[in-house]
Amino acid sequence: MKIKALTFAIAALLPVSSAWAAPTMADLEQRINDLQARLEHNEQAQQEQAKQVAQEQEQADNNPLFEFKGYARSGLLVNEDHQGATGTGPYMTAAGAIGAPVGRLGLEDTNYLEANFIHNRQLDNGANARFHLMLADGVETSNDWTAEESDLNVRQVYSELTGLPTFSGAFANATVWAGKRFDRDNFDIHFMDSDVVFLAGTGAGVYDVQLSDDWKANFSIYGRDFGSVESAGTDIENYIATMNNHIGQWQVMFSAMDSKDNDRVTAKAPASKRANHGLHALFAYHANSFYGINPGMSKTGMLIGSGLGAELKSIGSDGNLNDDAKAVRLFSFGTTDINETWSIAPAFMAEYSKDRILNHDKYKWATANVRLSQAFTENFEMVYEGSYQYMDLDNSQTSATGSYYKATIAPTLKLSTAAGFFDRPELRFAVSYVDWSSDLDNYAISTQTDPKPATMGNGGETLFALQMETWF
Amino acid sequence: MKIKALTFAIAALLPVSSAWAAPTMADLEQRINDLQARLEHNEQAQQEQAKQVAQEQEQADNNPLFEFKGYARSGLLVNEDHQGATGTGPYMTAAGAIGAPVGRLGLEDTNYLEANFIHNRQLDNGANARFHLMLADGVETSNDWTAEESDLNVRQVYSELTGLPTFSGAFANATVWAGKRFDRDNFDIHFMDSDVVFLAGTGAGVYDVQLSDDWKANFSIYGRDFGSVESAGTDIENYIATMNNHIGQWQVMFSAMDSKDNDRVTAKAPASKRANHGLHALFAYHANSFYGINPGMSKTGMLIGSGLGAELKSIGSDGNLNDDAKAVRLFSFGTTDINETWSIAPAFMAEYSKDRILNHDKYKWATANVRLSQAFTENFEMVYEGSYQYMDLDNSQTSATGSYYKATIAPTLKLSTAAGFFDRPELRFAVSYVDWSSDLDNYAISTQTDPKPATMGNGGETLFALQMETWF
Amino acid sequence: MKIKALTFAIAALLPVSSAWAAPTMADLEQRINDLQARLEHNEQAQQEQAKQVAQEQEQADNNPLFEFKGYARSGLLVNEDHQGATGTGPYMTAAGAIGAPVGRLGLEDTNYLEANFIHNRQLDNGANARFHLMLADGVETSNDWTAEESDLNVRQVYSELTGLPTFSGAFANATVWAGKRFDRDNFDIHFMDSDVVFLAGTGAGVYDVQLSDDWKANFSIYGRDFGSVESAGTDIENYIATMNNHIGQWQVMFSAMDSKDNDRVTAKAPASKRANHGLHALFAYHANSFYGINPGMSKTGMLIGSGLGAELKSIGSDGNLNDDAKAVRLFSFGTTDINETWSIAPAFMAEYSKDRILNHDKYKWATANVRLSQAFTENFEMVYEGSYQYMDLDNSQTSATGSYYKATIAPTLKLSTAAGFFDRPELRFAVSYVDWSSDLDNYAISTQTDPKPATMGNGGETLFALQMETWF
Repeated sequence: MKIKALTFAIAALLPVSSAWAAPTMADLEQRINDLQARLEHNEQAQQEQAKQVAQEQEQADNNPLFEFKGYARSGLLVNEDHQGATGTGPYMTAAGAIGAPVGRLGLEDTNYLEANFIHNRQLDNGANARFHLMLADGVETSNDWTAEESDLNVRQVYSELTGLPTFSGAFANATVWAGKRFDRDNFDIHFMDSDVVFLAGTGAGVYDVQLSDDWKANFSIYGRDFGSVESAGTDIENYIATMNNHIGQWQVMFSAMDSKDNDRVTAKAPASKRANHGLHALFAYHANSFYGINPGMSKTGMLIGSGLGAELKSIGSDGNLNDDAKAVRLFSFGTTDINETWSIAPAFMAEYSKDRILNHDKYKWATANVRLSQAFTENFEMVYEGSYQYMDLDNSQTSATGSYYKATIAPTLKLSTAAGFFDRPELRFAVSYVDWSSDLDNYAISTQTDPKPATMGNGGETLFALQMETWF
Repeated sequence: MKIKALTFAIAALLPVSSAWAAPTMADLEQRINDLQARLEHNEQAQQEQAKQVAQEQEQADNNPLFEFKGYARSGLLVNEDHQGATGTGPYMTAAGAIGAPVGRLGLEDTNYLEANFIHNRQLDNGANARFHLMLADGVETSNDWTAEESDLNVRQVYSELTGLPTFSGAFANATVWAGKRFDRDNFDIHFMDSDVVFLAGTGAGVYDVQLSDDWKANFSIYGRDFGSVESAGTDIENYIATMNNHIGQWQVMFSAMDSKDNDRVTAKAPASKRANHGLHALFAYHANSFYGINPGMSKTGMLIGSGLGAELKSIGSDGNLNDDAKAVRLFSFGTTDINETWSIAPAFMAEYSKDRILNHDKYKWATANVRLSQAFTENFEMVYEGSYQYMDLDNSQTSATGSYYKATIAPTLKLSTAAGFFDRPELRFAVSYVDWSSDLDNYAISTQTDPKPATMGNGGETLFALQMETWF
Repeated sequence: MKIKALTFAIAALLPVSSAWAAPTMADLEQRINDLQARLEHNEQAQQEQAKQVAQEQEQADNNPLFEFKGYARSGLLVNEDHQGATGTGPYMTAAGAIGAPVGRLGLEDTNYLEANFIHNRQLDNGANARFHLMLADGVETSNDWTAEESDLNVRQVYSELTGLPTFSGAFANATVWAGKRFDRDNFDIHFMDSDVVFLAGTGAGVYDVQLSDDWKANFSIYGRDFGSVESAGTDIENYIATMNNHIGQWQVMFSAMDSKDNDRVTAKAPASKRANHGLHALFAYHANSFYGINPGMSKTGMLIGSGLGAELKSIGSDGNLNDDAKAVRLFSFGTTDINETWSIAPAFMAEYSKDRILNHDKYKWATANVRLSQAFTENFEMVYEGSYQYMDLDNSQTSATGSYYKATIAPTLKLSTAAGFFDRPELRFAVSYVDWSSDLDNYAISTQTDPKPATMGNGGETLFALQMETWF
């Protein structure tokens, strides 16, 4: 490089044209030839460098060495007596104890965080190793120093291999993984803070095995802990084997589970007999439109399960299920823009379960939720949410039937209201009114198993919230 | 791109001049035209690329997608009997219990960490969303595995929106935020490890509302927790509304607070009556010079408060204040270079408070601290610190009056001694001698409320420290 | 920039050659001169930019502002009765309590993580400040939410200064540091999950003092905590002074330690008399070949220690050592490729110690381990491990002698099997058979000091593992 620079420098000092000798045509031609050669050289260098810069940028954008991703919400929730609200949240109703959510807007008091630190290692042959670490925390206190209350913990730590050159056929585009993780294909109804299906734990598996042109399947084994058997000096583990199929826009997911040591009776949860086994299935349709009637998205489906599979959302995570437990759940939700100003996101979820915790218990609930957004400017929108839940709960000894209602209005700031329901961060103020049937006030599903169960208390409360929510 | 490259390649193969046909003037001219066009094209490409590279660099420098920032100190503190020192630190005196600091150099035994993980999302229109997560920890143990002692916790988790295109007028340059955070405009006297004002908690607010050419104001609401009321099943929250004004170099900050359920008596803190309300004000002058007499910086001001506002530093964080509590605090500090070798940083803080925890208690203290640095080379300096504190403490039942003295000398390594008092990291060895009036040995402000209060013990101790301190 | 662009634009509009006026030779020459000047200018800009891009890339590669580094393993361990395995791991034998490891493959049930967040600050003069933070966690549970079990903690937090321009002579290439850290020159036998030497704690030191051409030395002081003396209100600290020499391929490391307050008797560990002092030495040879007979690597050496130095691996970390404790340890391990398919990694470690915890106790153990890998494709290999440990244990009151055996076979996926034993991540399935002499079943070294000591239980077990292991 130095030699070349020197050459140019010397060349610049030489007389290229002078008064004392008129140039000949040949001289000029030679100079043109020289210039052309240099220009070509320079053009090449320029193009190579542009390519290199673009490659580096693409690498940095698409597959950076390091990624920081997260979800967080944090804020204040104040009741009408300007006291901190307690006991509120999307699982605040009596049916919340068995996983029945209501609309979340304006009800959340927790400061919750998921921080993901991701390392990618990519070989030139395209093989990629991805390491994923998630730290998470959730506290209610508004204070900044939370060492006492801290729940900071490692929720995910796993590695994935993708694009292995020796994988071929059905496995050509497969991703293999092992460690502790949330399953990649979990999905949620954000407005209710409820996953439709939440498979998580420690294990190993493979994604995207191509069984036919239109059929991809995932296979996995996850382990979970239910606690420990003191007499045996061993943990109670639950092993979940799952096959998850994506056939066009349909999803069909089967899970079977086995927990050898779970058929015990603990003081805290006197199941008639706790389940050792479980079966679980999910059928879902992922539409690219709002129920075929408008642009947008919608997802609809059903979950069924028995035994340990009767916990329909968090597959295999509940060891207190009865041997005979049976449950079925329906869900549907979607989002669409009505016009330039208004967007709507209805959501529905309902479940029927029986012999769930004790023989002869029976639980029915259904939640309907609508979130609406009304854009006023590029950065400001009003968000509205109405939520209703019907409950018919019978824990085999006492029962209660009734309804829960919530209405929320939330002035909201965001970077771009046009970007839709799922653009974050949102900074919001929210006012909510919540009420419910008085029959439900003192009812608790766990009355038989928990000496001091939490109940809904009295309804008819106004709540004020200041909150940020973000993901990236 | 490929077609163009091919064209050039073919062009390079064509005879541009040959022996069998002399070029005409027109040929030459045509070739010059061609070269010129190509050169212009190349110049443009070069300039565009330079612009792109510069933009990417600027983006990476000024507003990177991810930022890692932190503060940490870690080291050993050994006493003259080569034992681990305990009970030392900037709040080691009897008055430390009510927030009276002394000079920190050579007294700190804790391994303290603040690690910030920041995500920026910037739109092309300049609107920016900033997510801020802070993890913090503080332990005394010198061991590496600290799971038992760990205080690791989430101290901040918030989102900010800046540069919203629809904000105009006084709000044109405003930043809005919500979540859990340290207020942006907190500032400290580093040498005493004491914030002048430390407003923190969970809430929402807006910065930099331009009320006139020279007047910016911040508005915020912060919530804090004082604990829980078991009988009521509710948390005791304190809500703090603040207006913080920057008028030229003056700062005027008003805070009012309201904690509805705090007027209770706990076994641990029998206040005459705990306060439900509080008022707090800060007046400060931020000078761009060392008290107008030398280049450097200095800050001087006063804080006053009553009720819950009588905790003057950590606004609204102390629920154990008496209904009648009153407090006033003065502070001043600055830094300047005396010459190429010596720099000086004097600091002063004093407080008078009464009816603070119990009726008729009365506390006076004043701390004077001087830190000096003497640069020997680009990387080595001697740092000296002298600290004095006067205390006149009356907890309404017993009283003590006396003084605390400390002298420290600290050989210090750093990247650049010329960069001043606030350049970090510093790796330091420190020897300190601390002593105090024997009257203070067994005195504790909390004698009435804490059955086994910590006391200062005997003075006259030499301490040896090995420590790193950094921020970035 | 804009003016220049405009100039070019205008120039492009001007007629550079036309039909109505034939150009002269001088015209052409002038145009060639112009073109040449512009080309030279452009060439320079191109070269400068290439240099700049290369510099930025080099900075990003070699000394990035931020680095994320880590180690993690996570997976399931299931026994032949499809229960979660407990009590397994490289320290599962009776001698594990005094630090005797066996081969780790297929035995680990923990989800263990080390996440390092590193900040580099580099001055133009080459001086560099490096901040290092390590978070670590280790839990057994397979669940994702581990707040209850979490051991998340800060294991390292330190700063280093390198390349200080005022350092010269022997210190010219020295690195100085202070804070909490793992010593830089610790090294391990990965296959046994055992450091050969693990020096860690809080302190300060200097690396790479060049004592002669072939001799580099490190000096450091580390503090560690053994617990607290309640009567004295003081922590029991142990201070370790170390000189660590690298002379060619030889390493000679001396450590002396002093723990003034450790000569006490606690209920949990009735040492005849606990040690106040300790001496420790390591002699090691780091070979660039597999014992001189094949390409690869190998390390061989000896450790000896007395008093507090009798904990040979984790220097100065065990406060329960007897005043008369003496120990000696031998180790050797290496890795080499046998051919394109097979690689081998033998490892050996043995220790003799006496008067270790109580007077007249005596412990001998020796472990031999072989790991073999057999590459089948670029991404798949079979890994085999055989492990044997001999134990002759006498805790001064009861004794046991016997052997432990393990055989493991592990089908393994990785990015590149050709990259050798230390390339990660590895995703592995493993089947192991472990057995031991029945004499050892109920033996525990700590029988005299721990009322309910853990024992090996019965041998003859088959274990199944699904695991990822990574570092980067």
